[in-house]
Amino acid sequence: MIENAFYSPEVQGDYELRGIGDFELEEGGTIPDLQLAVATYGTLNAARDNAILIPTWFSGTHQTWELVYIGEGRALDPSKYFIVVVNQIGNGCSTSPHNCDSEVAMSRFPHVTIGDDVRAQEKLLREKFGIERLFAVVGGSMGAQQTYEWVVRFPDKVERAAPFAGTAQNTPHDFLFTQSLMDAITSDPRWNNGDYASHTDVDAGLRRHAGIWSVVGLSTEFWKTEFWRGIEVPDYQFTSMEDFQTNFVEAVFTAMDPNALLSMGWKWQRGDVAKHTGGDLAAALGRITAKTFVMPIDEDMFFPVRDCAAEQAMVPGSELRVLHTVAGHFGLFGFEQSYLDEVDANLKELFAT
Amino acid sequence: MIENAFYSPEVQGDYELRGIGDFELEEGGTIPDLQLAVATYGTLNAARDNAILIPTWFSGTHQTWELVYIGEGRALDPSKYFIVVVNQIGNGCSTSPHNCDSEVAMSRFPHVTIGDDVRAQEKLLREKFGIERLFAVVGGSMGAQQTYEWVVRFPDKVERAAPFAGTAQNTPHDFLFTQSLMDAITSDPRWNNGDYASHTDVDAGLRRHAGIWSVVGLSTEFWKTEFWRGIEVPDYQFTSMEDFQTNFVEAVFTAMDPNALLSMGWKWQRGDVAKHTGGDLAAALGRITAKTFVMPIDEDMFFPVRDCAAEQAMVPGSELRVLHTVAGHFGLFGFEQSYLDEVDANLKELFAT
Repeated sequence: MIENAFYSPEVQGDYELRGIGDFELEEGGTIPDLQLAVATYGTLNAARDNAILIPTWFSGTHQTWELVYIGEGRALDPSKYFIVVVNQIGNGCSTSPHNCDSEVAMSRFPHVTIGDDVRAQEKLLREKFGIERLFAVVGGSMGAQQTYEWVVRFPDKVERAAPFAGTAQNTPHDFLFTQSLMDAITSDPRWNNGDYASHTDVDAGLRRHAGIWSVVGLSTEFWKTEFWRGIEVPDYQFTSMEDFQTNFVEAVFTAMDPNALLSMGWKWQRGDVAKHTGGDLAAALGRITAKTFVMPIDEDMFFPVRDCAAEQAMVPGSELRVLHTVAGHFGLFGFEQSYLDEVDANLKELFAT
Repeated sequence: MIENAFYSPEVQGDYELRGIGDFELEEGGTIPDLQLAVATYGTLNAARDNAILIPTWFSGTHQTWELVYIGEGRALDPSKYFIVVVNQIGNGCSTSPHNCDSEVAMSRFPHVTIGDDVRAQEKLLREKFGIERLFAVVGGSMGAQQTYEWVVRFPDKVERAAPFAGTAQNTPHDFLFTQSLMDAITSDPRWNNGDYASHTDVDAGLRRHAGIWSVVGLSTEFWKTEFWRGIEVPDYQFTSMEDFQTNFVEAVFTAMDPNALLSMGWKWQRGDVAKHTGGDLAAALGRITAKTFVMPIDEDMFFPVRDCAAEQAMVPGSELRVLHTVAGHFGLFGFEQSYLDEVDANLKELFAT
């Protein structure tokens, strides 16, 4: 067990750890006493039919959802819906390599799949909240992978789905991209094959990891237009590209746990709903009965609209709703109000169907 | 002096080393007895007005130009033009950290700029070939940086210019991209601050460097469509993404010298014709009198059409000619005949004006 304040409720906002027992994994191995970090907003109604599930993205937690997407009057309105954000396994808040004290700690943490997350979430919702059917699943990036997994694996359990900035089947390009992110960490000698004393030991690897994110996670135009000048953080004003790179991108990633990022990276690389249909993606997506809005980001460099639209075309009755933000994939952080307005308008329309 | 067969004429094709004497650099320091690796095709006419200069790109040599772009009946026709390909300083063939035995070898190699290359080329052409004025300068990527530098620095010496897949002023995004490429090498402990015994010592760093190129140098669609299946190399057929990554991309970059890549990387990061005009890019590009075709590649992830078009708009009388290839920036290698046909058609039109 390594202490890392970044994943504490003091930093991330309140969440509750909900144990769902020993959990067997698709790729083998078991996580003893799996704890899912859960944050809920709003109230489950008597019919239990107003629940919206939000799974988290790579390196993300419930926090961005709480601060940026959820609020009264918004599409994700806690006065109407019971919103359950479940931190993905291995993200640093739910059971992860650094925060468990068991035979699966650190370098011994087993491989987790998108399917494992979705099975764990289904069990959690059913056993802990009595939810058998979801009003909607909404997720971005790796959260979109989980959203697709939900509607393919449990087509009868989801009424609406909004995967944004992510794919149902990970692309070769994204496999390589994720590999470069992981290699940046594992090449740090102080990573020590996953057995380090503190995440700060791996600071150099985490910085290189952040450096690659800046190239592919944002957009050429984000940097060209110096969009970072308008990004507000408390008591700080970014004054140069180097300043933003150091005090935003690197600051965020160097606070995180290296093994958590690697666990999520391995999972991301293998996200693929076609596992359910012997590799036939069209057959897998053809199973979907949820009303689905596929929402890629126009400037996304690694989940380009083209890739998302190709999948959308295979989802019965779905619609393509392109989101616009110069921040590219990191637009998910909600840097632009116009982007958030688009998200809200699309989700409100989806929720009204 | 380190032996590296990759840069030999046996591997790269014939070239001649032409010494232009001790060469003072813009950022300070001198390269003693600077040798430029030069390959020429065709014959300089009596009027000395048929010379085309081609400067090389990052990690490139004269070889791709010879094999892919130059030929009778092509736009770059050696039966009409005297074509001079000059390997950029530090590229491994011209004087570079690993191939000199002097006070500037290896970790002591000084910083070289795009301006240094262009000044050295101008001196070479004037003193060794008696060329005072160029029919054209043609270059891709860092070769485009040098092409722009030529027409801004020496506007009276160039009649036509074709910068493709590159910019006159390096963008912030490309600074960060290049940094991630360089960090992949310098983070290898066996790079040893630039003093290694063999480039193979730095194999791990060079592999990570190659890994990042695969993410940004090609395109999402290149990988999605498995375009590599159609790429022909002698006696080999690529059978998987991993195979292509290992036996093409990694094979190419691990053959190279780490310090050469770092020297070029530092230079690339600082390419900027606005140095001539106190930072005013429009003023710098406004100096250009050469007829200029700006030719970005549609799928280029780091020299996007948008960035190139913005510069083109500042070049008097210039035209934007977008090239199309799914291979993205690496389309420069000429994987697609349709791309090469586009290049030839545009260059022929430019040369006819």
